[in-house]
Amino acid sequence: MAAAAPISPLAPKSVPDVAPIDGVRFASGEAAIRYKGRTDVTLVLFDEGTTVAGVLTKSKCPSAPVDWCRSMLPGGKARALVVNSGNANAFTGRVGAAAVQRTADLAVAALGIDEGSVFLASTGVIGEPLDASRFEGVLERLAGEATQDGIVAAARAIMTTDTFPKLATAEAMIDGIPVRLNGIAKGAGMIAPDMATMLSFLFTDAPIAAPALQAMLVEAVDHSFNAITVDSDTSTSDTLLIFATGAARSRGVHPIDTATDPRLDDFKAALRTVTLDLAQQVVRDGEGARKFVEVRVTGADTDAAAKVVAASIANSPLVKTAVAGEDANWGRVVMAVGKAGERAERDRLAIWFGDIRVAVDGLRDPTYDEAAVSTYMRGDTIAIRADLGLGEGRFTMWTCDLTKGYIEINGDYRS
Amino acid sequence: MAAAAPISPLAPKSVPDVAPIDGVRFASGEAAIRYKGRTDVTLVLFDEGTTVAGVLTKSKCPSAPVDWCRSMLPGGKARALVVNSGNANAFTGRVGAAAVQRTADLAVAALGIDEGSVFLASTGVIGEPLDASRFEGVLERLAGEATQDGIVAAARAIMTTDTFPKLATAEAMIDGIPVRLNGIAKGAGMIAPDMATMLSFLFTDAPIAAPALQAMLVEAVDHSFNAITVDSDTSTSDTLLIFATGAARSRGVHPIDTATDPRLDDFKAALRTVTLDLAQQVVRDGEGARKFVEVRVTGADTDAAAKVVAASIANSPLVKTAVAGEDANWGRVVMAVGKAGERAERDRLAIWFGDIRVAVDGLRDPTYDEAAVSTYMRGDTIAIRADLGLGEGRFTMWTCDLTKGYIEINGDYRS
Repeated sequence: MAAAAPISPLAPKSVPDVAPIDGVRFASGEAAIRYKGRTDVTLVLFDEGTTVAGVLTKSKCPSAPVDWCRSMLPGGKARALVVNSGNANAFTGRVGAAAVQRTADLAVAALGIDEGSVFLASTGVIGEPLDASRFEGVLERLAGEATQDGIVAAARAIMTTDTFPKLATAEAMIDGIPVRLNGIAKGAGMIAPDMATMLSFLFTDAPIAAPALQAMLVEAVDHSFNAITVDSDTSTSDTLLIFATGAARSRGVHPIDTATDPRLDDFKAALRTVTLDLAQQVVRDGEGARKFVEVRVTGADTDAAAKVVAASIANSPLVKTAVAGEDANWGRVVMAVGKAGERAERDRLAIWFGDIRVAVDGLRDPTYDEAAVSTYMRGDTIAIRADLGLGEGRFTMWTCDLTKGYIEINGDYRS
Repeated sequence: MAAAAPISPLAPKSVPDVAPIDGVRFASGEAAIRYKGRTDVTLVLFDEGTTVAGVLTKSKCPSAPVDWCRSMLPGGKARALVVNSGNANAFTGRVGAAAVQRTADLAVAALGIDEGSVFLASTGVIGEPLDASRFEGVLERLAGEATQDGIVAAARAIMTTDTFPKLATAEAMIDGIPVRLNGIAKGAGMIAPDMATMLSFLFTDAPIAAPALQAMLVEAVDHSFNAITVDSDTSTSDTLLIFATGAARSRGVHPIDTATDPRLDDFKAALRTVTLDLAQQVVRDGEGARKFVEVRVTGADTDAAAKVVAASIANSPLVKTAVAGEDANWGRVVMAVGKAGERAERDRLAIWFGDIRVAVDGLRDPTYDEAAVSTYMRGDTIAIRADLGLGEGRFTMWTCDLTKGYIEINGDYRS
């Protein structure tokens, strides 16, 4: 269980100081879904006028709450988000759909809002029916307790195998007026369906229409949550939602309707910063991770080709075990480049660990210093770069090493 | 090193008794390429008239011997095969190509044969230049020692991280006359470029033209070597060659020119048997493997879709660690089905471990006996079946569990 595991050695040194956002209130409590003696349900309330956008798992077997969010997102309006940990309500069929409906009904009754403005997410065991009656009374009580300051408690309540709560924050200027963007996330395997899933929720007071939010979110995800991997496995439940209360209108920020509006440039940068920060925190909490690994591919034919090659390297068990063993095994990087299926010419390939070039022009770099590489590999952050020498395409991914700890966490007897 | 590792618990109980094949002679010796005190080079000699076909790695960064074989296969004729272990001659650029040429020159000089009839394969460390001068004198000596009975010694000489030699044999009837098919293989990771690669060589006395051999080999590979995975990693050096001496002509078998000739039906079955046997032996020697896993996908839209889903399950670290932990974690199988990207409908999916159905119609099977499943998971052979409930497409793959042993073998310091 999450509480018992030691904090990842790659965790940030402290939880960031997150300023509240007007129009968003949080409350977390205990619904005893699976865990005992810890919070496992979070209610987030949004003021009227809040817009929403989201990116959901591409899994062909999504969880019931993912189905729910997918059907509500086109409405673009949000008043409440209910998240529980301990049970993912995934692969629960009609029973799962009924549990989601029941949870939404309870939220509607407790809060007096439209069903279409309720968003739901669940994380935890898969295949077990979620008993939605556990939320009875709980949502009403939480609604009464909700405060602007509850974001850290919310980040804790959604943890499963996570060893630390994940928060990030940034400020952006729109029309010369500061707006804020806060985010929380949970996730420790790219997924471990027994106990995990990747969830992330972002909150801003910027007044941005839902379609514009959606377009910006998709773009930001490409280089953050879609640029990380722990074990190449994809959750049935991955959910990323962004909520914009528009409260900054009261400070003079005019509403923005389109993602191409240049007034959003600074906000887009903040969105990239926060999503990348949270995504990297997920990798830093990767199950069994001892090293944080950046994989940068340059010189590919296209950015898309570079991404395929980067993913091949970042997902390779042999590359990841080599990093765990502090072995600058560039032969395994060559293997991963070769198996990716994108164009690669052996005699143009160059590979670096950190700033040390270990292979060039189809051969071991004759000048590289083995002792310097060994020292570098002992660090807790390892940058691998592969230049294909073909074009301008580039992509960077982040992952972690593959250790016995991963096997222990995922291979332990369930009972 | 291979010699030091204990034999895989999944190894066959004995080495099969392999009858010799007319027209094929083997000799193995020590060239001291990397290992000391063990054989590391094998020479196989073929009588005049031997045809050859092959399937080579799809890696975009193939080894120098793979490039060599690719250029010689269209000739369709073979007189000699030289295989070394200890050095893969991969990612060695122009130096590697020169080493291959030098090895072939030595074979031509020692044996008095055409360059185009020499086939080469190397397995071992990647990125280190191969010193072909080590073969000087060795090939001549081996040519003098070659005998029909040397196949077991050959299977041993090509081992790297393998813990047991891999041989298989079958008899087939052509025109009512028995012909023989023998094979050897090596491989322990789907690849571990530090010390491994998948190599396999098949030998038969059937008189079959090279194009017919090629067509049959490609078909057999689809359901054998292309249906196994240890760690999803693909070698720069994977090489499968089949040599047909045609010696059975002297016993009355008439030459066969086309793969569609019905006289080949029994031979095709033998080819499927031998390739599947060898492929499964590679899985049984998977690095760190404690359990042999069959993944069978049925009810997919097409066979191709079934293969994608089967590979997603068989390559999933979370499925493989669950098997290692003797945990019938069907939620992870759902996850792997969902991430495969092929059509899947949650409410039609059913999953079995062995004969025990654990999930059906989008829900945990209410009737299944947890104790029976637990007992089943303690066995050393685990069959996972996923029925998608959509169509007639089916595919079976084989893999092994993912254990701390894999991390130990691949994550150890290289020095």
